[in-house]
Amino acid sequence: MHAYRTHTCAQLRESNVGETVRLSGWVHRKRDHGGVLFIDLRDHYGITQIVADEDSEALSLLDSLKSESVITIDGVVKARSQETRNANLPTGDIEVFAKSATVQSMAEELPLPVAGEQEYPEDIRLKYRFVDLRRERVHNNIMLRNRVITSLRRRMIDQGFSEFQTPILGASSPEGARDYLVPSRLHPGRFYALPQAPQMFKQLLMVAGFDRYFQIAPCFRDEDLRADRSPEFYQLDFEMSFVTQEDVFQAIEPVLAGVFEEFSGGKTVTPAGEFPRIPYAEAMLKYGSDKPDLRNPIIITDVTHHFEKSGFGIFEKIVGGGGIVRAIPAPNTNEKSRKFFDEMNDWARREGYSGLGYVTRKGGEFGGPIAKNHGPEEMAKLYDELGLGENDGLFFAAGKPKEAEKLAGAARTRVGEQLELIEQGCFKFCWIVDFPMFEYDEDQKRIDFSHNPFSMPQGEMDALENQDPLEIKAWQYDIVCNGYELSSGAIRNHRPDIMYKAFEVAGYSKEDVDANFSGMIEAFKLGAPPHGGSAPGIDRIVMLLADEPNIREVIAFPMNQRAQDLMMGAPSIVSPKQLRELSIRTVEQPKPDAPEATRVDRAGDA
Amino acid sequence: MHAYRTHTCAQLRESNVGETVRLSGWVHRKRDHGGVLFIDLRDHYGITQIVADEDSEALSLLDSLKSESVITIDGVVKARSQETRNANLPTGDIEVFAKSATVQSMAEELPLPVAGEQEYPEDIRLKYRFVDLRRERVHNNIMLRNRVITSLRRRMIDQGFSEFQTPILGASSPEGARDYLVPSRLHPGRFYALPQAPQMFKQLLMVAGFDRYFQIAPCFRDEDLRADRSPEFYQLDFEMSFVTQEDVFQAIEPVLAGVFEEFSGGKTVTPAGEFPRIPYAEAMLKYGSDKPDLRNPIIITDVTHHFEKSGFGIFEKIVGGGGIVRAIPAPNTNEKSRKFFDEMNDWARREGYSGLGYVTRKGGEFGGPIAKNHGPEEMAKLYDELGLGENDGLFFAAGKPKEAEKLAGAARTRVGEQLELIEQGCFKFCWIVDFPMFEYDEDQKRIDFSHNPFSMPQGEMDALENQDPLEIKAWQYDIVCNGYELSSGAIRNHRPDIMYKAFEVAGYSKEDVDANFSGMIEAFKLGAPPHGGSAPGIDRIVMLLADEPNIREVIAFPMNQRAQDLMMGAPSIVSPKQLRELSIRTVEQPKPDAPEATRVDRAGDA
Repeated sequence: MHAYRTHTCAQLRESNVGETVRLSGWVHRKRDHGGVLFIDLRDHYGITQIVADEDSEALSLLDSLKSESVITIDGVVKARSQETRNANLPTGDIEVFAKSATVQSMAEELPLPVAGEQEYPEDIRLKYRFVDLRRERVHNNIMLRNRVITSLRRRMIDQGFSEFQTPILGASSPEGARDYLVPSRLHPGRFYALPQAPQMFKQLLMVAGFDRYFQIAPCFRDEDLRADRSPEFYQLDFEMSFVTQEDVFQAIEPVLAGVFEEFSGGKTVTPAGEFPRIPYAEAMLKYGSDKPDLRNPIIITDVTHHFEKSGFGIFEKIVGGGGIVRAIPAPNTNEKSRKFFDEMNDWARREGYSGLGYVTRKGGEFGGPIAKNHGPEEMAKLYDELGLGENDGLFFAAGKPKEAEKLAGAARTRVGEQLELIEQGCFKFCWIVDFPMFEYDEDQKRIDFSHNPFSMPQGEMDALENQDPLEIKAWQYDIVCNGYELSSGAIRNHRPDIMYKAFEVAGYSKEDVDANFSGMIEAFKLGAPPHGGSAPGIDRIVMLLADEPNIREVIAFPMNQRAQDLMMGAPSIVSPKQLRELSIRTVEQPKPDAPEATRVDRAGDA
Repeated sequence: MHAYRTHTCAQLRESNVGETVRLSGWVHRKRDHGGVLFIDLRDHYGITQIVADEDSEALSLLDSLKSESVITIDGVVKARSQETRNANLPTGDIEVFAKSATVQSMAEELPLPVAGEQEYPEDIRLKYRFVDLRRERVHNNIMLRNRVITSLRRRMIDQGFSEFQTPILGASSPEGARDYLVPSRLHPGRFYALPQAPQMFKQLLMVAGFDRYFQIAPCFRDEDLRADRSPEFYQLDFEMSFVTQEDVFQAIEPVLAGVFEEFSGGKTVTPAGEFPRIPYAEAMLKYGSDKPDLRNPIIITDVTHHFEKSGFGIFEKIVGGGGIVRAIPAPNTNEKSRKFFDEMNDWARREGYSGLGYVTRKGGEFGGPIAKNHGPEEMAKLYDELGLGENDGLFFAAGKPKEAEKLAGAARTRVGEQLELIEQGCFKFCWIVDFPMFEYDEDQKRIDFSHNPFSMPQGEMDALENQDPLEIKAWQYDIVCNGYELSSGAIRNHRPDIMYKAFEVAGYSKEDVDANFSGMIEAFKLGAPPHGGSAPGIDRIVMLLADEPNIREVIAFPMNQRAQDLMMGAPSIVSPKQLRELSIRTVEQPKPDAPEATRVDRAGDA
């Protein structure tokens, strides 16, 4: 018989009744029913009920154990009586009568319990993460993460991609977010940086002639932390050569749709091949956002022209001054009180906007000051245009274009939530496409890149030479799911001549470009294929699938929000010798409130 | 038609003749045969021959291109005439007649050529790695690496393992090799460290109740570099709960044997389930090494007792002083001159040993001073014992036990190489087991751990309490392939009581242990399963399979031997603002001979 187990704690069934078995696991729960002891024995796979009574030699030992002790049980499988069967447990038809027990590890008093649903402060959970991870929900989250990543890998390989490893000790880049730096011992005064993303390397792999790269890539940003941010995070980083934007979409839609279908737990998923492509301008108009949540059925409409001479002074003035008015329907709100509408207005003011106008409608009757000033006929005309019915309310976001657009988007989300219109049980994907290449910078009174200067402009050199820069779109795209941006991506500008020209349009000289981006441009001068890709965020994908709003719930050993590993005691004070070797000095003395290193140093597998 | 290609450059066959196709790739080679231009067009997948003559509109454009330019060809597939077919090329039966060509990227003069086998200095290759990686051998090495890792992952998952990610920003540990440190911005004066291995985390995952962990884990050591070392390297890190040593072997042998069989290119591989288990003491005796190359048929024998009163003064004296004599056969050396034997002796002296004695034998006649002193009868008796024949020579390593053992091992290797006895075309695996738990430290005159203090001693507490410490073995094992150690591993000591006792035997108090290893011990006090694992080196596996002696040949973007990334310019000088934010100062001014950052900064996929 095996030293520790003949079966896992999820394996035994009624067909095993009568067998002598050996199980090992943690003492999950103990119940003493007057001389009969029941133990839920738990391992990674599941739970099996162990029974010991006065006939069992193991009784006194088992009775003495604290929860979470690790034991090995030798026993006999017995059928449970009908009334004690547990249909919620795969092993619920049987129990194991303990003949003997061996303690593998005696548990002391626990800092937090494993059984039960009780909430604990995050710092306690993270300090004792190795106990916290035994709890069902977080255990399942981490296994979900592992399975999602394995599935992503398999699906990428099925699509003809190969996984590469790119360096983690890289070069610092003054662009983007803040780098984590690593002092060099061999080159005093110089530093490596941890990659914010393997962007350069994946493009250079394409220049090196590899065709379809991917990597479950660790990325690092030294940013202030939020619920959805971690200092280290993972991207499904990918890049392809000799592709158009549509090729990228066709390669990755089956991967994303596939993995969401596999792990959505029955929620519907936008099928591969059917992810809507929504131009940026359309997204900003209809959803007031370039990250639209398509589960929300509300569509925003521009109604500026209605209010040029509306009789409603405020709107007339806004429109006259170059502003816009956007309409956000609030369907079937005839039963809603005035308070509902007023509170929306209050919310908008709290958010820093000048307010959110509205029209109520009950059985065809319009209400509210805008309707009054605008007149019922004009209002009915507007409703007809928008296809609204006789019990639909309507909100108005009016103001300067960008501000009103943003307010409309936020109001759309809030109305959808308040009216419970957000479709549940589904993952709705879309691509946002046709981002503008350039924008007019109001502050600096000049044209600048609106997003990524390294994306290929649509129309390439011809567009740069002959079109109004503000009309030029980029081959750039975001993938969005349920209102969350999973990633940006682009067809890259691989042509030095087009790169120089695009920078020239944005006001940068060839010398500026060479001073800042010579490495990539020099590489492109030695034969570069057209290429493009993206990098969906893996932690975000798992958060969506696990329905967890906090990234730390889907990472096995996360840092806390102050970027500390409370379990291992990182960051820690290091020895003067270490600093000497690295030719650096610390400027400030470490504060004592930070945790000390727990000194859990180990000689490892070499 | 697709914008860039209807087929890859490896796809077209005779069955495609007559089709109009579009191909994209790099201009690999150009040959002008008097008005007819042949281009080998290369992409990731292969090479297709393009032809253009005066009937082709593309001729003058193609004629003007430099090698490594990227082009798209529209053309028609033609069969090659029998005499021009190339059986070495999958597309060798056809060529594509170019009707038109588009330049995607014009290449300038190359720093190193792609076609051909010419060797280039490593620094040039690494600076222009994106060109170097196009070369067939290194391109194939990197793809081999990718496939090996994918295969390892699949095989681990098939064995019931799940892949986890453990933190890369961790805590510094004073043990082991030198850490790479990362200054913390939020906690001035404190540092993260990059993991030398995820040892702690994988054990804590077992304590957390996960059962079979693995990770293709990036590891970091700030050590001086050698041909087989890189600052960052990858391990197939794994750990299992509720297992014995034999369970670990049975789980991992199919993975290693499987991946070697898959990628060995026809070389034979020790079958899974048949990896020999060689006790450490036996390995040291028979092979003079705990990393024996089993392809070498030579077996060392201890012949000390023969020389107690041998008549050969030097050996008598050595043996009398507690030394040993080991015999290393040199089979079928009757044709070898005296020079062969003398040169072995010279080699041993150059290596710092006092020398390597020998006996020659030709047709049964012994030769050399040892045989003379020892006498032919005694010699024949020794030969009979060793099972040696009448044309076999014999070397002797004599001296203090450790020294003679080591010399015997080195001589075994050298004799095997010189006599070309090393079996080619095979990968021979073995486990080295039963490492001693403790050893006597001659310098400090005390008992200390011989390898890993955290391995479980065989016999556990009972052994520690009742056995001679120098007789206790550990549940520790190495996996060795063709003389290379792929990894150490162990069944861990998960019991605080046994841990304290083992340290006590080695002379450490409970306080010593708590001061240094409290983190892990405290974790073990909250319920820890028996567990064990190992971590075979992935770079080494790929080096063996690719038959490359230099680790940099199997890494896409390696650093050079001075730990510099010459392509990206890392490590680099960073801005004073960056250092200020991190509350550190550099002590030395950076030296100008190190490379400047190439400033290849890019806004990436967010």
